[in-house]
Amino acid sequence: MSKIRLFVGSALAAGTTVTLDAGQAHYLLHVMRHPLGAPLVLFNGRDGEWQASLSEASKRVARAAVERLLRPQPSPSDLWLLFAPVKRARIDLIVEKATELGVGLLVPVLTRHSAVQKTNDQRLGAIAVEAAEQCRRLSVPEIRPLRPLVEVIGDWPAGRRLLVLDESGGGLPIAEALAGLAGRPAALLVGPEGGFDETELDALRRLSFATPIGLGPLILRADTAVVGALACYQALSGDWRRQAENQC
Amino acid sequence: MSKIRLFVGSALAAGTTVTLDAGQAHYLLHVMRHPLGAPLVLFNGRDGEWQASLSEASKRVARAAVERLLRPQPSPSDLWLLFAPVKRARIDLIVEKATELGVGLLVPVLTRHSAVQKTNDQRLGAIAVEAAEQCRRLSVPEIRPLRPLVEVIGDWPAGRRLLVLDESGGGLPIAEALAGLAGRPAALLVGPEGGFDETELDALRRLSFATPIGLGPLILRADTAVVGALACYQALSGDWRRQAENQC
Repeated sequence: MSKIRLFVGSALAAGTTVTLDAGQAHYLLHVMRHPLGAPLVLFNGRDGEWQASLSEASKRVARAAVERLLRPQPSPSDLWLLFAPVKRARIDLIVEKATELGVGLLVPVLTRHSAVQKTNDQRLGAIAVEAAEQCRRLSVPEIRPLRPLVEVIGDWPAGRRLLVLDESGGGLPIAEALAGLAGRPAALLVGPEGGFDETELDALRRLSFATPIGLGPLILRADTAVVGALACYQALSGDWRRQAENQC
Repeated sequence: MSKIRLFVGSALAAGTTVTLDAGQAHYLLHVMRHPLGAPLVLFNGRDGEWQASLSEASKRVARAAVERLLRPQPSPSDLWLLFAPVKRARIDLIVEKATELGVGLLVPVLTRHSAVQKTNDQRLGAIAVEAAEQCRRLSVPEIRPLRPLVEVIGDWPAGRRLLVLDESGGGLPIAEALAGLAGRPAALLVGPEGGFDETELDALRRLSFATPIGLGPLILRADTAVVGALACYQALSGDWRRQAENQC
């Protein structure tokens, strides 16, 4: 039986019982036909990963008995992703991939050429939860409401480096930009399809905390650029530098 | 007007006329309502990128006059991607992203746990063409017919390093595996969702030309792993190491 991992809101500790939400109960009981007593894995982003089992299953209610700690909660991810919203299928991919790639905070930003001017925070949140469940991550990234890029930049916290994907070709090759960034707070900014406005890019280039970066000679789709840049970050400055523990 | 770039089969040279295919004619004339005389960009994977213009437009036929060379044909990409087919939306993403990320040859392979046992070569080819048109690439990757992994490995060319994504956690961190690979022929192998069979992975690990690699502690979807690993390759050993020319 493949492991079912679920994200829950409740506190998790040995001996407690957790009521699953209606969607999870439906998935477990009616889609997966998960039998009473069968194992489950639960996490909540705070208390680590827990072995549990289905302890009550009525038509609409499912509860799980929390048994023992499988993995302690790791320190939270400190990587941020700022991105201009794109069309539905591609924004969903950005949220899914950012979750798999260890982003801690997702900040949708409005830029001058943003074709898409709103985000469905509830749907994006659900995608992040599902991706975290799938990829064995023990936290779910926070997704902020959409805000103008200038406001986000205006509030920028001291000490956090902003890597700006500069499609005009002037950016530093990403491997060079990442050298020396390990262990320092960082954020990646990916603009809309069609790129930043020239004045916007000029303003970004003048920020003391920003480094314009390049991802080669081709014009990448926004979702490709997000995954590519985040992967390079993890490989050179993040979690991919260590050999993984055996996961079987 | 945003630039329309089309991949054609015909030879391209100044003064020649190219007949566009039926799909391109429909797209240009009926979707984009491209006026007679308006500019187009053409490439064929052999003769570089050409400025052209729509020179004939009847109900079903569109022809373009080829005017002047914009960019010479670069040397072909020598990066290979071997991948186990996955479900439709995700295999389409793999082909699109591999094209954007500069793969020269795509080899779908059958592994023991491959859930998907066939590929639609025509659809995948069309996706590669569309991605090349979009990302300003001057070639379209070749897509081989599906073959068992053991056969592909049995035929392996001398001197080409095979990076095997090892989800069991035993692989070398990708940045380490890529050190020293620049300029040498390389291929990436990504297994099916659910991973390689243990005996398969053992056999892969024993190949003299193979290096098992890891992409961090989480379980990535196949399409995420493909983009992540290819991006790291380009950043550390490939085309992303140079600053791009200004592309405006």
